[in-house]
Amino acid sequence: MSAGSPAGLAPLLVGERLDSLRGLLDAAGVDSLLVTSSTNIRYLTGFTGSAGSLWVDVDRAVLVTDGRYRDQAPDQTGAAGAVVDVVVVGGGDRSPIATLAGGCSSVGLEAGSITWAEQRRLAELLPSTPLATDGLVEGLRELKDEGEVDRIAAAAAIADRALAEVLPSIQDGAVEEEIAMALDHAVRSGGASDRAFETIVAAGPNSARPHARPGTRPMLDGDLVVCDFGAMVDGYRSDMTRSLRIGGTRTGRAADLLGAVLDAQLAGLAVVADGVPIAEVDTACRSSLEAAGLGDAFSHGTGHGVGLDIHEGPAVSSTSTGTLLAGQVVTVEPGAYLGGFGGVRWEDTVLVTADGHRRLTLSPKEL
Amino acid sequence: MSAGSPAGLAPLLVGERLDSLRGLLDAAGVDSLLVTSSTNIRYLTGFTGSAGSLWVDVDRAVLVTDGRYRDQAPDQTGAAGAVVDVVVVGGGDRSPIATLAGGCSSVGLEAGSITWAEQRRLAELLPSTPLATDGLVEGLRELKDEGEVDRIAAAAAIADRALAEVLPSIQDGAVEEEIAMALDHAVRSGGASDRAFETIVAAGPNSARPHARPGTRPMLDGDLVVCDFGAMVDGYRSDMTRSLRIGGTRTGRAADLLGAVLDAQLAGLAVVADGVPIAEVDTACRSSLEAAGLGDAFSHGTGHGVGLDIHEGPAVSSTSTGTLLAGQVVTVEPGAYLGGFGGVRWEDTVLVTADGHRRLTLSPKEL
Repeated sequence: MSAGSPAGLAPLLVGERLDSLRGLLDAAGVDSLLVTSSTNIRYLTGFTGSAGSLWVDVDRAVLVTDGRYRDQAPDQTGAAGAVVDVVVVGGGDRSPIATLAGGCSSVGLEAGSITWAEQRRLAELLPSTPLATDGLVEGLRELKDEGEVDRIAAAAAIADRALAEVLPSIQDGAVEEEIAMALDHAVRSGGASDRAFETIVAAGPNSARPHARPGTRPMLDGDLVVCDFGAMVDGYRSDMTRSLRIGGTRTGRAADLLGAVLDAQLAGLAVVADGVPIAEVDTACRSSLEAAGLGDAFSHGTGHGVGLDIHEGPAVSSTSTGTLLAGQVVTVEPGAYLGGFGGVRWEDTVLVTADGHRRLTLSPKEL
Repeated sequence: MSAGSPAGLAPLLVGERLDSLRGLLDAAGVDSLLVTSSTNIRYLTGFTGSAGSLWVDVDRAVLVTDGRYRDQAPDQTGAAGAVVDVVVVGGGDRSPIATLAGGCSSVGLEAGSITWAEQRRLAELLPSTPLATDGLVEGLRELKDEGEVDRIAAAAAIADRALAEVLPSIQDGAVEEEIAMALDHAVRSGGASDRAFETIVAAGPNSARPHARPGTRPMLDGDLVVCDFGAMVDGYRSDMTRSLRIGGTRTGRAADLLGAVLDAQLAGLAVVADGVPIAEVDTACRSSLEAAGLGDAFSHGTGHGVGLDIHEGPAVSSTSTGTLLAGQVVTVEPGAYLGGFGGVRWEDTVLVTADGHRRLTLSPKEL
């Protein structure tokens, strides 16, 4: 992450986030939190290294990392405007954490990401038994500010252009692996720092696997093809799936499947708005597919939050309990998968707004 | 992962691995193990999905996964020759695990990878308190068989060719991000399913950061450049770093640094052999750099195992306690980093043999 913002994007307000977290500690029953998720550390401080832990209490924030990040850690936290002390230790040395914990009566750990082994090590070291916290930073991350939305939208626009560039190559004889490689290259050439996740291009029978890996089978006329990919800008990701039929979408079973899943996706998108129970988005998609006789063919959740992680809160599924909030960025991605025949998925990344949503992935759906 | 082996590579003997694991349970004090690391699940069963857990006891192996992998899971485990039952559940349903645990008195969990939150959930559900196990599958994975070495060597060869292809572009005016993108594309075009990890291309001041991310600064004549990248073949990875000076390696501080670190790397490689204490490899590199007055500039460990993960056992550092074993695949990668000036790292991936090592990354070091 560079010190400044990429051209035209609102700045990331990293410097305010530590205080937002501090405001949650009391209600979580802790007076300090050891942040161990590298994504959460990046969110709170701007530090992008893969190793480190971040001590946060009411007075201090201390990033403990190793020698590989001796220069990078203070450079990045300083540039982000985060008030953080950096301590460099030999790999695996947790003694600074124990010292910091000396003045605290209740230290929280991020139970959803810290390993059990690390929790056990810290439990031996800390003066008091550490407490499990659940998604404190992840909760903050669900609500995106302008700078964050700008980055996700920029990533989505890069992915849109990449698909337009690669689409003419997706035809009879094309190979999944090669199309995936072309999408990845187009995303990077288009200005993304990276793809958002491992690109899925799945054709024919492989398209019936929601999380297929691209293979070497040449596509055939009549194959259904699912392309699920995204771009990354300044750490923020986009997520989009488009489906098509090699040879075009004429009548028949493939055309029916493409249309039925698109109807379901539009039904889901139509209910997205601030204050709507999240499960209603899932219900809208699922009911539409059930009405088309495809209820059993929809074998995964309806969506998820997107941001610094490709999968973050809120989850959009039948068991979701909360309501959508303006500022959340979520996917709506129903699919239907018929073993031996093929599958279809349509997915957009959208910003929840007061009265609906703003779609960030804008590639056409009439392929 | 395809059912067959890529052309010319010895097959992966996945079918034997569950029994190897069963042979370790007794000594670990458990009569069953819930495998939750997706890499370990792949190693034991051939299943490449991102979600699932694998129950292993003396009689059975049961893969519990969700609807996205309904077809893929039995297809892949069957093709790999692993004797595994597949159970498909709704996301987050752990009841089959509780049922399986009913007949067991001591269930092990993989403490090094399972999250504390998941351990707490399982502890509530299981009939007995789960026990922490430490690296059982990871220990098996350290010793590579012929099929695994073939894949790492194939990945290394692809990376060698990619570097040869991109090297002429690394010159005055080149941009880190563009060189990284070109390496990634060359690796994929060369037959890898993916890059092995996020490629590092770091020039000038950025090269003094061991884990730098590629940026947008154009390279200048005289810059040191560090390229650290790899390829992936059938899930197995290679890892290599080459360093150079824009404008060539003439005399002066950059040339001295390149030479001193190369001497250290060759010193480390020279001691690699079956039965050698692992820490001696670190000592050889470190002593060489200390003799050159660069001891403080070497701020990270000397190496790590490579396989299905880019970082796996054994770690090669001053605190390593074991001995090298024939069949391990490790990196030897000393570096020296001078803040404000630049850095150098030389890294090879090598197979430990009875009387030395076989180098798998073969790119020249006289750049």
